[in-house]
Formats: sequence, C-alpha cells, structure tokens
Amino acid sequence: MLVSGRRRLLTALLQAQKWPFQPSRDMRLVQFRAPHLVGPHLGLETGNGGGVINLNAFDPTLPKTMTQFLEQGEATLSVARRALAAQLPVLPWSEVTFLAPVTWPDKVVCVGMNYVDHCKEQNVPVPKEPIIFSKFASSIVGPYDEVVLPPQSQVDWEVELAVVIGKKGKHIKATDAMAHVAGFTVAHDVSARDWLTRRNGKQWLLGKTFDTFCPLGPALVTKDSVADPHNLKICCRVNGEVVQSSNTNQMVFKTEDLIAWVSQFVTFYPGDVILTGTPPGVGVFRKPPVFLKGDEVQCEIEELGVIINKVV
Amino acid sequence: MLVSGRRRLLTALLQAQKWPFQPSRDMRLVQFRAPHLVGPHLGLETGNGGGVINLNAFDPTLPKTMTQFLEQGEATLSVARRALAAQLPVLPWSEVTFLAPVTWPDKVVCVGMNYVDHCKEQNVPVPKEPIIFSKFASSIVGPYDEVVLPPQSQVDWEVELAVVIGKKGKHIKATDAMAHVAGFTVAHDVSARDWLTRRNGKQWLLGKTFDTFCPLGPALVTKDSVADPHNLKICCRVNGEVVQSSNTNQMVFKTEDLIAWVSQFVTFYPGDVILTGTPPGVGVFRKPPVFLKGDEVQCEIEELGVIINKVV
Repeated sequence: MLVSGRRRLLTALLQAQKWPFQPSRDMRLVQFRAPHLVGPHLGLETGNGGGVINLNAFDPTLPKTMTQFLEQGEATLSVARRALAAQLPVLPWSEVTFLAPVTWPDKVVCVGMNYVDHCKEQNVPVPKEPIIFSKFASSIVGPYDEVVLPPQSQVDWEVELAVVIGKKGKHIKATDAMAHVAGFTVAHDVSARDWLTRRNGKQWLLGKTFDTFCPLGPALVTKDSVADPHNLKICCRVNGEVVQSSNTNQMVFKTEDLIAWVSQFVTFYPGDVILTGTPPGVGVFRKPPVFLKGDEVQCEIEELGVIINKVV
Repeated sequence: MLVSGRRRLLTALLQAQKWPFQPSRDMRLVQFRAPHLVGPHLGLETGNGGGVINLNAFDPTLPKTMTQFLEQGEATLSVARRALAAQLPVLPWSEVTFLAPVTWPDKVVCVGMNYVDHCKEQNVPVPKEPIIFSKFASSIVGPYDEVVLPPQSQVDWEVELAVVIGKKGKHIKATDAMAHVAGFTVAHDVSARDWLTRRNGKQWLLGKTFDTFCPLGPALVTKDSVADPHNLKICCRVNGEVVQSSNTNQMVFKTEDLIAWVSQFVTFYPGDVILTGTPPGVGVFRKPPVFLKGDEVQCEIEELGVIINKVV
C-alpha cells in the first residue's frame, strides 16, 4: 500500500472507532508483517491506531502463526501475558501491515439467520436449530485489506462477531464450550446475494466464499479480555453512514450453543473460526436494494475494534 | 488396528480390485505411517496389496506431507520419478498404515448432480452450471479407515473421482486447467441424506462433513499415469454387491470445466481436492431406500484402485 493510502487509512481508523477498548488490560493478539521482518509475525496490538509489540522478538521460541500459538495453549498464552505486563518497544502503526488474526484455519463455520432482529427484517421465523454453512479459508483477508468485487454481482455487507477456537474438541457440551474458545474478533461476512438466492442450486457456499470475502480482525481479543461477548454493540457503516446497528444480545444461538451444535458433526481444532451471524440492516432488504460498489465498509464491535475494508 | 483386522482387510483388498493398475509405469503417491517411523511419510504404492517405497528414505530432503510435496512441483516430482525407476526396498503392506493421500487441504470442493445417469435416476434436469458445495478437511480419513455413523441418521454411499490440485491458480481457463492438476484418487462422498434434505435449511454442508465422511485413496495417481480420467469405469460395492457401476465419461462437467468454473470464485492451492460427483445407484433412490449400517463399502475406479471402509 502507498504511504498516502496508509495515512488515509489511519485517519479513517482514528475517526471510526466509537467504542474504545481498554489497552491496558486487554490481550489483543495480532498477526502482522513489517518491512524489517521476514514473513508474518505474532504481536500484541496496543491501541486504536497505536502500534504493535513484536511477540516473536520478546520470545524467539514462540511460533509465528496464530494457529500454532493457539495449539500450544496456556504455555504460549502465559508468554503473551508476560509481554503485556512488560515495558516493550512498540512498532508504530504506520510501519506495520496487519494480517487477519487467524489465517488458514481448517474451518470457517458460518451461521445463517442468527439474530432475532435480522429474522424479523426478512419476515422469516427464528430458526429452531442453527443453520450452518461455510467459507473456504482462502477467502480470509486482513482488517484493512480490499474486498474485490466479482463482475456483475450483487455484493452486500454483513458485520459479524467471530469466535476463534483455542482447544480441540468433539461432542463439546454447551457448559464446557467456553473452555474451547480462545477469543473473539470482528468479521465481515461479505455476501454475493445473486449467487446465494438464484444460482448454484441455492447452496450458499459460492456466494460467500469469493477470494477476499472474509475480512477478519484487527485482533484476536482473548476471552478473558471481553466482559460479556453476548452483550456487545455491533455496527456496520458504509461510507460513514450507519447501516447495521444492534447488539450481540440479539443472537438466537450463543457461542456455547453453536460450539455444542457444530461439534456434534465435526472436530474443532485450534484456529477454527465461527462467524455467528449478522444483525438487520443489510443492503438486500432495503427498498430499493443497495449493493456495494467502490464503497468503504467499517465493521465495528464494542471492545473488539473496527475493521475497514474498501470495496474495489 | 489388530493384526487379524489387517489380515482380513488385505484379503478383502486382494479380492476387491477388479481393474488392476500397471505398477511398472504408474506413479502412485501415498502418505503412510509405519511402526519404525516417526510421523507420516511419503511413499510410492507398488501394487494392489503390495508394499510401499519410502520416498523420505530415498531422499531425506523431501517433505513429509503431500501438500508440501506438491507445492515444490517438478523439483519433488522428479525425485519421485527417480525413485520409481530405481530398485528400492519395499515396506510390506502388512507393516504400513495408509493415510489419505492428501490431508488438511485448504479446500474440499464437491460437485452435485454431475453424472448424466445420476440426474436421470433422480428425475431432475442435467444442471446447466456446476453445483458446488464443500466438506471440511477434518472429514478426510484414509483408504481403509472406518466411517463412523452419526446416531439416527440416514447415511448413503457415493463413489467419486477426486481431482488433486498441483499448482496455485485463479481464473484458470479450461484449456489450461490440466496444468493445475497433480493427479487423481478415489473418494467416498459419504452423505447423511436426512441432513441434506430435511435439516439445516437445506444447506448440504452438515450432512456431508461429519468426521470420517471423506475417505480418500489409496494413492494420488499422477495425471501422466492415467490414460484418460474421463473414461474410467467407476463402481461402488456394499458387502460385495455392486450398487453403483458407471463410467467417468458420464460426467456432465469434466475436470477442466470444474477447475475453470470454481477458480472464478476462489484461488486453488496445491493439495486442494475436487470431488467430481457420483454416478447412479445410491441408496436413497432405491425402493425401498437403503442406508448404511455396519456394512463394508468398496469404492473402485479403474486405473486408480479401490478403497475399503467399514461403517461402524
């Protein structure tokens, strides 16, 4: 990205965030690149528009990918906690490229119609069981990356709370589910409506999984840093205008229920991501319908942060 | 697996294969374990019920997973060709545990209703565009592993030709598609019919992606070892009785078309797998319908081999 592009993005970021997080006590894990470092690294985000502490410099034995970091569980988390408590050098925001906090997970599990208010907007009954679909991991991009529009498609926004799995499990009980969660992040479940409703035999996969259709970030906020994941303001803005505004307390099936449900079918692995559904306000149900074209989309969740993705 | 179980399986294997391959000229890449080796290794399958040449012993610089092997392209393939031409020690079949030839790919792409004769059996029109869905990589198991039935579900067999991607690509033209193919293998697209048609908002993912629902193998047969992937006898037997019998020339969309179609949406990576659809004869369309329960399923494709999976 050109320097002017990064400066514009930083300005947008500093203006965007409405619900600041608490940098002092929060563990905000990121994957990042920097010009002086070879390949992706793990870090701690220090604040909105602030920089990054290089965890791999603090402890060179730490793995360099989030999935490997999560696989080691408490051993690596305790190193990150020590780094958070120490006074360490911070790489300035302008020198860092933020990647998605998780890349190449085995699974990106998505949940359909999981907000009570989003069901009302569509005039459909609230589901009695979770409706599960997926994206390929190849659709994941970073928190400030571009979303690339496919030709002639009707592409819509969907802000979502994403859960990141920290511990392997199958047939997980809802009461045990939080022990399998590493933390939370913001997701944009970009959706090509024409492909969802009129093509591909109504199987949703293709319309959801174009390359770049899964921006994630900016950080994996560990579960102990989030007061209550099911009581967070959640919002989407298109070119600065609020288009979705709800609260995760509107979720039909909460994190624990979703993990219990899906783990009846599949084994969860560290790094697996669950996109928990979107609130009302998407473009397709507007009159007339509105679709993305050259817009800037900001998806924000209280305590977690904001991701900003230009649609090109 | 107990020794008696392995002996029984070897006997079944020697009886099962109806269309032998040509061990002398074919490159049949496998992933395997053996008691004296730490972790999975790469090898060459030498014949039906024959043993395995340890490629990692032949050249210790070779990677130990198929995905990494494929990522290195011609460099690693040329090593495997030299191994094939040399007189090397063979690990006996009884000492080897065969893994799926590809594990943990980014994508398991599946194609619905892709055999002309399978469409006729369902009384549905032949699709004008491929219908694409997916399994999670966590559903992949080895060629002789068990398929675990979920409680109270209606589980059906589906033998399929699987394509393994060898080279990264996006927007691949059909005329260039074969350059992106590493080879072919046999897949069993195990399917829980009740979950496909009556649950999960008719999204097929869950009914297709239970753990163990994607046996693959026995080998990745490189494309130059297959005379014509679209003219291969394909067959499924349940407890020895032929239930599916067709030819890959019945495929509506061939390998090249499928790669061109799907790569409009996503980038393909080495190791990605495409299950190309099943011929007629599945259990659900029988009168009365038949579902699996404690059966032994053999899926066989001419020149590629046979996989044998007990349903437990």
